[in-house]
Amino acid sequence: MDDLDDCITSCNASAFLVYASSTDPHMRYLTGFSSTDPVLFLKKPGERGILIVPDMEAERASRESDATVLSRTGSGLQDILQTEKDLKRGYALLINRIAGGPVVVPPNMQVWLVRALEELDPVYVDAEDTVLHLRARKTARECTAIRDVQAATTEAMERAVHCIRKAKIKGDYLYCNGKPLTSEWIRQEIQMTLFCHGCIARDTIVSAGPDTALPHATGKGPLPAHAPIIIDIFPSSEKTGYYADMTRTVARGEPDPEICTMYETVRHVIGKVESAVHAGVSGSDLYQMAVDLFRETGYRDRKGGFIHSLGHGVGLSVHELPALSPAGTMLESGNVITIEPGLYYPGTGGVRIEDMGCVQPNHFENWTHYPKELIV
Amino acid sequence: MDDLDDCITSCNASAFLVYASSTDPHMRYLTGFSSTDPVLFLKKPGERGILIVPDMEAERASRESDATVLSRTGSGLQDILQTEKDLKRGYALLINRIAGGPVVVPPNMQVWLVRALEELDPVYVDAEDTVLHLRARKTARECTAIRDVQAATTEAMERAVHCIRKAKIKGDYLYCNGKPLTSEWIRQEIQMTLFCHGCIARDTIVSAGPDTALPHATGKGPLPAHAPIIIDIFPSSEKTGYYADMTRTVARGEPDPEICTMYETVRHVIGKVESAVHAGVSGSDLYQMAVDLFRETGYRDRKGGFIHSLGHGVGLSVHELPALSPAGTMLESGNVITIEPGLYYPGTGGVRIEDMGCVQPNHFENWTHYPKELIV
Repeated sequence: MDDLDDCITSCNASAFLVYASSTDPHMRYLTGFSSTDPVLFLKKPGERGILIVPDMEAERASRESDATVLSRTGSGLQDILQTEKDLKRGYALLINRIAGGPVVVPPNMQVWLVRALEELDPVYVDAEDTVLHLRARKTARECTAIRDVQAATTEAMERAVHCIRKAKIKGDYLYCNGKPLTSEWIRQEIQMTLFCHGCIARDTIVSAGPDTALPHATGKGPLPAHAPIIIDIFPSSEKTGYYADMTRTVARGEPDPEICTMYETVRHVIGKVESAVHAGVSGSDLYQMAVDLFRETGYRDRKGGFIHSLGHGVGLSVHELPALSPAGTMLESGNVITIEPGLYYPGTGGVRIEDMGCVQPNHFENWTHYPKELIV
Repeated sequence: MDDLDDCITSCNASAFLVYASSTDPHMRYLTGFSSTDPVLFLKKPGERGILIVPDMEAERASRESDATVLSRTGSGLQDILQTEKDLKRGYALLINRIAGGPVVVPPNMQVWLVRALEELDPVYVDAEDTVLHLRARKTARECTAIRDVQAATTEAMERAVHCIRKAKIKGDYLYCNGKPLTSEWIRQEIQMTLFCHGCIARDTIVSAGPDTALPHATGKGPLPAHAPIIIDIFPSSEKTGYYADMTRTVARGEPDPEICTMYETVRHVIGKVESAVHAGVSGSDLYQMAVDLFRETGYRDRKGGFIHSLGHGVGLSVHELPALSPAGTMLESGNVITIEPGLYYPGTGGVRIEDMGCVQPNHFENWTHYPKELIV
């Protein structure tokens, strides 16, 4: 938290303020507390921070958070609201009283509270988003949490690919126990497997055929034979809130030779990029390396191609720093990142392969132990 | 959307602006589009609104949203970023160019974008939170979406109670097939059932014994016999994003007579309150009615008691307007609300019963078809 203290003092502020529900990753990171309703976190330099929660959450928050927990009543809010009837101004008065001066807030702070606080003292916005940068460098405890989720994700991928592998091909479609094997069916198998490990996934992608040309289409309906099926799973742990992320593209039967060539290219690129990852290399250079590798293979001159970034950080958000994109900065040891090159051609389809792992001083520690094979 | 147009014109603004990921309920409500990464929505009076999304999301957004969809490139953002290297200022320039003047934003707008826009034109904050109020009055389509989730929730509750009902009592604990029946086990049964209906629940509560005195403790470990078990399920549909919410308190064996009396009291209060719900009554009056009913039964003079609000709106958020609390305003036809009185005494335990339904001109249309019986 030294970086946060530096941020406070460099702004000449008295405290750092976050007001959000703890589904907000900043709040969860700073407090370790999880709640649906918004709570307030205020930290002065050298102190561990005060967490103000609804009265009925105070006991649970005290158990779950390292912060000094106050109930709304205990914080003095109810007293303030005896005379100040406007809840927004009441919050501002409470914060101003506890902070004892101007506060600095993260860039995603809600504007209503900033406006209410500005009536009392200046409000500084942490343009660097210090907490976002803190979150990018994972501790050993965070690494364990993310690896646990990736282990569950791998098991879910195994389950999904197992269903596709054992499917029967009849005409152009896949069947299981006489019934059409669908995207929805595979997604349910994935979800069930994740659940047994305390993880939940939203928007799991099981897309097939021409739909695979849209990287974020979630897919629906019967799964075709002889065509690419993209499976992209990014669940989070219900207990810790940490995410993981992985993608495989598979096919049952005999996919079009063009898809096979695209697959070989993507597999070649991910291997090369992973070998190049270490602390000190920049996310933009890695992105450019992938672009150049694709270019060498001729996958450039048609509509489509490699149309998204190369990867992203993973933590309490599924997309966080560092970026492996034209805007990418220097990778550091402890960054947990995905590497996910892909090729997409409307009408033909798409191929994506995504691993997730940790940046080490001299290499990429791949936490994704699952084969990269198109035909299953 | 007339209310939104009124909001724009009454502020003398040119457009209404939302910038958020569509996990933000306002964004999902206004655009019908769902994405992990933030997107931009800008609406001028009399127009249906423009949705600006990452290039690779443009085709999917066009399918899913009624708004006019532009890719970032198509919107002109990439052109602006050729000369304006700061992404924040780039967004502000783009918004200012499309809006053609000052914008009005919801109270939860992120401060970084407000500050960047303020360098070009004033930014008005919609203090009333017009979108929040729009969201409180459900359309027929929204009602159907919420009822569907409540039907899945009811099935999950049936499954949970079935497991408790068939459990064997050995000593002070419950057993199923010779193994201790745990909170985690019941939660998994609930999750599996919800999944089969395309719903996902986080933070499902299956708390037991003294833990039930903490309304939001999620519970863990072996479930006791002869003690209250609170089951509170509030899932959302993965497809529509709408929530539902219900709670039952059950016990297997012979709970303490005090728990039985508390149960009777809570059941009495929920019945009375539900009979009093109709359009035109205020949420604060209903809350006060519950307080008075509890007071009549003597459940007031000890530490604990009825320590939370009486209920809340349900929609794209699990907690939204209207509030059934001291701050509650007039209920309107089409509000979807919970009614959830409870009693909590540290050391003894808690009881909560929660129904969800729709406010009608002359009555409460209860969408929660599940018995209210303590002993199962």
